[in-house]
Parts: sequence; structure tokens; C-alpha cells
Amino acid sequence: MSVEPRTPLGVLELLPAQQLAFQRMLDTIRRGFERFGFLPIETPAYELSDVLLTKTGGETEKQVLFVQSTGTLEKARDGKRPELALHFDLTVPLARYVAEHEHELVFPFRRYQIQRVYRGERPQKGRFREFYQCDIDVIGKDSLALAYDAELPAVIYGIFAELGFGKFTIKINNRRLLRELLESLAIPAERHADALHEVDRLGKQDRTEVEARIAAVTGADTARRLLDLLARPLAELPASGGKDDLQRVYDTTLALGVPASALQIDLSIVRGLDYYTGTVYETFLDDHPRIGSICSGGRYDNLAEHYTKSKLPGVGISIGATRLFSQLLELGIATATQRTTAHALVLHVEAPLALEYAKLAAELRAAGWNVEVYGGDDKLGKQFKYADRSGVPLAILYGSRERDAGVVKIKDLRAGVEHDVPRAELLERIRALLHTE
Amino acid sequence: MSVEPRTPLGVLELLPAQQLAFQRMLDTIRRGFERFGFLPIETPAYELSDVLLTKTGGETEKQVLFVQSTGTLEKARDGKRPELALHFDLTVPLARYVAEHEHELVFPFRRYQIQRVYRGERPQKGRFREFYQCDIDVIGKDSLALAYDAELPAVIYGIFAELGFGKFTIKINNRRLLRELLESLAIPAERHADALHEVDRLGKQDRTEVEARIAAVTGADTARRLLDLLARPLAELPASGGKDDLQRVYDTTLALGVPASALQIDLSIVRGLDYYTGTVYETFLDDHPRIGSICSGGRYDNLAEHYTKSKLPGVGISIGATRLFSQLLELGIATATQRTTAHALVLHVEAPLALEYAKLAAELRAAGWNVEVYGGDDKLGKQFKYADRSGVPLAILYGSRERDAGVVKIKDLRAGVEHDVPRAELLERIRALLHTE
Repeated sequence: MSVEPRTPLGVLELLPAQQLAFQRMLDTIRRGFERFGFLPIETPAYELSDVLLTKTGGETEKQVLFVQSTGTLEKARDGKRPELALHFDLTVPLARYVAEHEHELVFPFRRYQIQRVYRGERPQKGRFREFYQCDIDVIGKDSLALAYDAELPAVIYGIFAELGFGKFTIKINNRRLLRELLESLAIPAERHADALHEVDRLGKQDRTEVEARIAAVTGADTARRLLDLLARPLAELPASGGKDDLQRVYDTTLALGVPASALQIDLSIVRGLDYYTGTVYETFLDDHPRIGSICSGGRYDNLAEHYTKSKLPGVGISIGATRLFSQLLELGIATATQRTTAHALVLHVEAPLALEYAKLAAELRAAGWNVEVYGGDDKLGKQFKYADRSGVPLAILYGSRERDAGVVKIKDLRAGVEHDVPRAELLERIRALLHTE
Repeated sequence: MSVEPRTPLGVLELLPAQQLAFQRMLDTIRRGFERFGFLPIETPAYELSDVLLTKTGGETEKQVLFVQSTGTLEKARDGKRPELALHFDLTVPLARYVAEHEHELVFPFRRYQIQRVYRGERPQKGRFREFYQCDIDVIGKDSLALAYDAELPAVIYGIFAELGFGKFTIKINNRRLLRELLESLAIPAERHADALHEVDRLGKQDRTEVEARIAAVTGADTARRLLDLLARPLAELPASGGKDDLQRVYDTTLALGVPASALQIDLSIVRGLDYYTGTVYETFLDDHPRIGSICSGGRYDNLAEHYTKSKLPGVGISIGATRLFSQLLELGIATATQRTTAHALVLHVEAPLALEYAKLAAELRAAGWNVEVYGGDDKLGKQFKYADRSGVPLAILYGSRERDAGVVKIKDLRAGVEHDVPRAELLERIRALLHTE
């Protein structure tokens, strides 16, 4: 032993049982994406730095992790920016991918992408340097119908309903509507971003305080009128394009099967990025508001202006799976209920029957069960201890006694009950035992 | 447009239909691993450099890709090695993981791991800097029974039989047996590595040439006698521990359901790494020997000697999924047969019925089908063009004519046939149409 084994800071490394639960979560997300006909893509973990960092300023660059071989480390000492950098989200790689493969894709292009992304920020609690994002986007060429904006909350509803992390609410709003409301109050365009930045605090901070902050941007009277507008039901707002869009997205989302109890128009939802121009989404677990939005996104005008002359409007949404899972683990909601992938463990009862254990396992696997064979000729006590610790539900015992009696012994480790089963009925009995779970 | 969108060299980026095929391959591999009760783990893409590079020499370090934030780039200019490096395989991370989490794991620890790994080598055809590895290992504490050596070829057989890339052969050998054979010919221990390095060329190079190369190490007479031994059936070799082990692994593998036609004892299989001490494996596609081994591994004495005092013997095997898939693509064997995840596309026939399309899609999705809704009110010709290009098998049409007649029109785009189906029979008919595939 020469080096202490340590995990780098800012990553979520899981024990196998937790990994099983996380993997199930990612599988559910993937299935939910495919249920709506989204197509998978994967991009490399790193991009060329000049491609990745084209549209971003120095702040982003500070958070980027660069990739270098020993050879290029030499060059770096000359002060050159490294040629490769790990992607910090899946949106810039998507833009690059769509622009690069534009003529090979079918539009509207419906893609999903489940990958880890990397941020160079200082590791601290709840902040990861490596984390999974699960993204879907629908990308149009030249235009993209509003109906697609309703699909994304329907996808999200299906996934979180299946994940079973408790009640949740998908909140939707429309940036165009917000812009129109600000215009109706004669707030100058150059103050919109500041005003919306404060509006975004509604629901997270005290209303009086938010009003004071908006007042600093717009004046007190306008601030009060704005908050009054934002508190009204959509139907009571003045007619506008953004209002119509939001209503249509809401109605279509309900028609797609999302219950009204899980969908809410919330005019205080802004989303930080200026990038968004129409519909915006955030999603909250009703019983755990402090986790914040677990799934956010929106409509944007042009995905890849830096890479192509084609206009590519789109709408997308992203689940931050690592952060969500780690918080649910802490809250005890995402529990590692399953410790093993195996349904049965064939014990090594007598050495002369070793090949019989292999054959029994092969038979069970061919029937679709996941099966382990205990490899060594350890005492049965030690084998049962392994079975117990591994969490396998059934142990299969077959010694000369069982062979002579034409039976196999199944020990149900969940119930602590043994069954002597005629050899010919083994598969049937195992099916019965495992389906009672 | 300001930057040309380009993918970095040395990565395999796939179009969606190819990605679907690759994803199916990874899913099959994962299912195959779980069928034997292996447990998933994932480790971060990067490790601390001092942990990752502990046991490797300068050659490995040259092939490593380091990770740096802008802040640490400064330090690198002082000539310091960066703190983080991308993992170049999954074995060193496994060793670190097992040593770090030793007291939380159940031994024998059966883990699978499907992740991308990174090599800083010069990109060239068939050489990837980023590629998937799919690894399984069984790790014992202090000891690990030989029976586990037989499981790995059984796992591999199940997976490649299901993948359907044609006939394949799993070749097994035993390094202990090789050592014993070299000893029986009085080849000094310090020449074993050189001699085995040449033996490894058998089957890849001309036998006469290999014999000459071995003769340069051992002398001509010994070389001839060695090749004579290696050409014999196992049963005709002198008795030895390695011979017994190899025979037992072979017999147990057959008992696990691997047909003799897919399993072959081949005494010329060496595997490059000194790391291996017992059973070794290589796997070849019978019709494509030039691809080389598609899945290799072996038994080792101690996984994590640099990280822990515990002795952790193990046996493992690895599928290089990216390289394999890219070669199968080139050969036309891994074909992207499925272009979409969707089973049906609901067309937008008449704008006033838009919510009906959403409801139809919701109904089909609830029944388990993957469904898209065409979002815009484009002409039907354009919508069918999209359907055709996307590859969806069924289009669903529902206009006022169909509504008034109480039917839904299903167009089977594979057969070019339309069916008017009573509304109440929609699900049943779709099931029938999609199951005929």
C-alpha cells in the first residue's frame, strides 16, 4: 500500500445498492423520453475549446475544465488555452451536433441526451463538478410549432409520476407574456432584465422585499402594479400574444394527460437565462420545496447561431439527475431498496456436485432469472452469510440427499422458509415465489 | 455563424439511428451482466492523478489526459503535474473503489461497469481517445474460488449470442500452465516473459517465423519442443496444477451452458499483461478474425496492492464496445435498422381537433406505445414526408370525416396500406399491426 485511495471532490460516487437505484432512475427517465419518440444522441465528454467557448464570456471559461495530454501540457506553459475542454452542459454540444450534422437529421429533431457534464467550480456541499444531466429538446428548422411546448411538461409528468418521489408541480410561464406585461407598464426595455431578475425571487423570498427591489428598478407605483398583474389568474390579464400562447400550452398539456393538480401557471417563473424567449418551465416536489426546481427549461429562438446560418428554434428541458438523486438520498426518499441484481443464489453444497450447480444456474438463467452460483466450497454457514449480506431473495440447495429424493431445496431468505420442490417443478415454484413480492 | 462546428478527433459520434443500435448493444451487455448477478458501479471520469498513476510508469503517463480548471492552468505553468486525470481504463478505478469502500462491500464482490475511458494517444483510424469499456470482475478477499473463472466466458457467451454478430469463439488458456510448461523445458524464469511474448504471436503470424523468434530466446531445440507442447490437446500434456485448473474451468463453462463449438482451449493465448496469473480469455468473431479479440481478460492475484494491505484476487473480462461497434458498422454487421423510438405518429389533420391529437397520443402512450404528435399545421404532404424520413411505422389520422364516422385512420407506412378503424378498436388494431413486425 503506497497511496491512500480517495475519490476526487465534487463527484457523487455511489455504493452498488445506491447505484442500482440511480440506474433505475436514469432508466425511467430514458423510457419516459422514448415514450414521446425522442431519439438518443451522445456527444464526446469534451469539445474543441474554440467550439465550446464561442458564445460564452470569461465567467464561463473560469468554470470550464480543460483536457490536456502530457504533450500539450508543455504548450500550456506558453500560456495557450488548451485545445480541449469538458462540456459544462448538453446544450452547447447539442448546438454543435445539430449544426455539424444538419443535413443528416430529420427536423423537427427530437433528441434526448443523458450524460455527465463538468464544471470547474470549487467543490462544496450540493455543488458537483461532475453530474448527470438528462435533456430533451425539439429543434425546428426556421420555425417550430407551439404545440411542442406542451409536450415537454407531459414528458416530465410521466417520468416523475413513475419515479414516485411524491407529489410534484410543473410550473409554466411565458417570457413573451412577461415582456408584454412590462411593456404595458411602460417599463423601458433596457430595464426588463433587471426587473425580471427580481420577479424571479417571488415564491423564494418575502413579497414585500421583492416589491422593494423591483421598485428600485421601476419606481414604487409600477412595482406594485406589476406584482398585482403577476398575482392575477391568466384569464384576467389583458389580451396579448404571450397570454394566448401560455393558455394554449396549458390546455394542450392537460389534453396530453397531465392532471391539473400537477400543472400550474405561475407568472413569477422567469428562468435566469436570457436565452429563453417563450414558454419556461420549473418543477418542484410539493413536499420538498427547498430542493428548488428539479427540472427546468424553456423555448428559445435560435439554438446554434454561432455554428450555422440556419435558424433553429427549439424548446427543451433538463433534469439534473445527480443533484436530485443526492438530495433524495439525504431525505431518505430515494432509498436503495434492492441490494442485488440476482434473484437466486445456487449454493455450493457438495464438491462432487459442482457441475450440477452450474447446470441448475444455466437452467434458471435460460428462464430469465438472474442467478449467482457460490464459487467456493466454504461451509454453508459462510455461504448463507454471503447470501444474507448480498440481499438475494432465494437460495437454492442441492446436495446428494436432495438428488436422491429427486428434489431441490429452495430457501426463501425473505421469509426464512424452506421448500423441498420436485426437480421438475423448480422453475414453476421459483416463478411463484418471486412473483409474490 | 462564427465558428465551424467540429467534433474532436478520436471520438465516435453517432447519428441517432446508429446511437439507437449502439444503445441496444450496451443494453444487451448490461442485461447479460445482470443475468449473472453482477452489480453496477460508476466511478468519476477522472481520478486524482497521484491515485491514478501510482502503479504505472512514464509510458502510461504519456497516454493520460489531464483535467484542469483555469485556476490550475496557472500552476501547470510552474511544471507541476495536474491534480486530476481522466481514467484510461476501468481497472485502476475499480481497485481504488474497492480499496476505498472495502468495508461497505460484500465479497466476493461482483461488479460491472460500463463507462467511457480516455487515452491521450494520437488519434488515428481505429484508435479512439474516448471509448466505452464494459467490464465485469469478481473480486475475492484473501482468496477466490476457481469456479468464478468459468462464469466469465458464460457471461460473454450469453451476450454475444444475443447480440447476433455471427459465430464467435471464446478461447481460454491458463498462465500457470504456460509457466509450468516453460519450466518443464528448463527455460529460465527471467526469459519467460520474452518467450511468452513470442508465443502470443501464434495464430496471428506464420508459425515458422514465431518458432525462429522463440528460438532466439530459448535456443532452437527448446523452441521446437515448446511449440510441440502448445500444439497438443490439453489431455496429452504432462500433469500439472495449471492443466487441472484449465480443464476444470473448461468443464464448468460447458456445464454453464456454453456450447463446445463456442469454447476452445488455446495454449497460444497469453494476454500481454504480466498482471494475469491464471485463466486468460480472448474472444474472436469466427468470420472476422482481423478484428482481433473483441473481449479479453483473465485472473489476477491482487487487485489493489497500491491502495490496501488486503489481498484481493480477482478475475475479470472487458468488452471494448466502441471499437467493436465501429468495426461492425464498417463491415455492415451492426446496422442501424431502427431509425426512431416511436411506434406511431399522430398527424395534425385539422387545427380545431388539435386537442384531440393530444388525447389520442396520451391514450396510446398509456397503453405502452411510444408516440409522437406532429406539432404544426403543415400540409399533410409535408407531414407524411416527415413521417417517412423519421421511419415511424404507423401514422394516425383523425379529421372531421373520421370523427363523424366514429373511426380513426391508421396508415401503415411500412406496407403503404390504410385502415379505417372503429375508435373503440384503435388500441387493439395498433397492437395487432405492431406485433406483426
